[in-house]
Amino acid sequence: MLPFVQLSRNPLKLPSILNSEIVASSRLFSIESLDLRFSNGETRTFERLPKRGREAVIVCAVTENREVVLIREYMAGLHKYELGLPKGRVDLGESFAYAANRELKEEAGFGARSIVHLRELSLAPGQMGFSIHAMLATDLYPESLPGDEPEPLEVVLWPLDRIDELIFSHELSEARSIATLKIAEVALQGNHPEEPTLIAAG
Amino acid sequence: MLPFVQLSRNPLKLPSILNSEIVASSRLFSIESLDLRFSNGETRTFERLPKRGREAVIVCAVTENREVVLIREYMAGLHKYELGLPKGRVDLGESFAYAANRELKEEAGFGARSIVHLRELSLAPGQMGFSIHAMLATDLYPESLPGDEPEPLEVVLWPLDRIDELIFSHELSEARSIATLKIAEVALQGNHPEEPTLIAAG
Repeated sequence: MLPFVQLSRNPLKLPSILNSEIVASSRLFSIESLDLRFSNGETRTFERLPKRGREAVIVCAVTENREVVLIREYMAGLHKYELGLPKGRVDLGESFAYAANRELKEEAGFGARSIVHLRELSLAPGQMGFSIHAMLATDLYPESLPGDEPEPLEVVLWPLDRIDELIFSHELSEARSIATLKIAEVALQGNHPEEPTLIAAG
Repeated sequence: MLPFVQLSRNPLKLPSILNSEIVASSRLFSIESLDLRFSNGETRTFERLPKRGREAVIVCAVTENREVVLIREYMAGLHKYELGLPKGRVDLGESFAYAANRELKEEAGFGARSIVHLRELSLAPGQMGFSIHAMLATDLYPESLPGDEPEPLEVVLWPLDRIDELIFSHELSEARSIATLKIAEVALQGNHPEEPTLIAAG
């Protein structure tokens, strides 16, 4: 059990938000303009993409043979196929563990008997409010659920002991997946700062 | 030197982009709607945030005492102060190494005599075209350059050997910073898949 990191020396005073305005929005995204006054009097106009809609989960699932479950999926942002960890939105009324288990069943054909919340990850916190909850799933069994993917996803099992090759691969570029894989690796070594919450997955 | 990961079994056929349209945009961001036809005939409309503007770098700088250089900065997306690695845009005509070195000087008060390109990281490749180049800076010396920050940034040195505490800290949530820290840690152990390109920083 590692101590919790507390690095703050001085309590910092947050900038005042003088004005905020949604300057553009679409079906999924909004763009917000913020007029800020920092505690030293400096003023700036920032743009950010605020969080919208439901929470999300990303799942590092590990088989009894110590392999991580990857999926290969079309990534519209890059217009290419890439590997990554299963992920998706938390539906109304679902716990993070339940949502992680459902996504694992839909995207990779596995259910998990135990799921641990690792931590919340932000993407680019200077410009975006988006975040995702990193989960660790173990004690897997085969179970599939129909998902809403436009095509079946290829499932790739990759040895946990060779994660350090994967994180340099050009087939997996996503910072969220790489961070979750390495955090899960540390948690599996027993170095988790909080007592793991083991949840019997539904 | 680790082997390069090549996992693809079947060459996958990319979806056809039937139509694409910028549905909203602002000073910094655009939102694009894409009509896609997957190779199995399924059609879907996706939204994505395409990459705009210049490339970006994120820098893991390591002192001779094996400490990583962190900065504490106001994160508008989350409206809080958080720790993260120095980062910024690549200016016109700059190499990635030069830009990384300049950002390190502006944000943290260090120059580096050697800088290695670790890899390109995407953020959320299913929905965004954004990426950032993860760099490793070593052989540091004190040097400051004026930046465009609204207030001076607090610099925190954290022992490389205790990164596994940091990646669970609530003071550092950014997936890009966590991924870069852990990739740099692996690279510093000599497990870098490509020959490091050592660049004499300007």
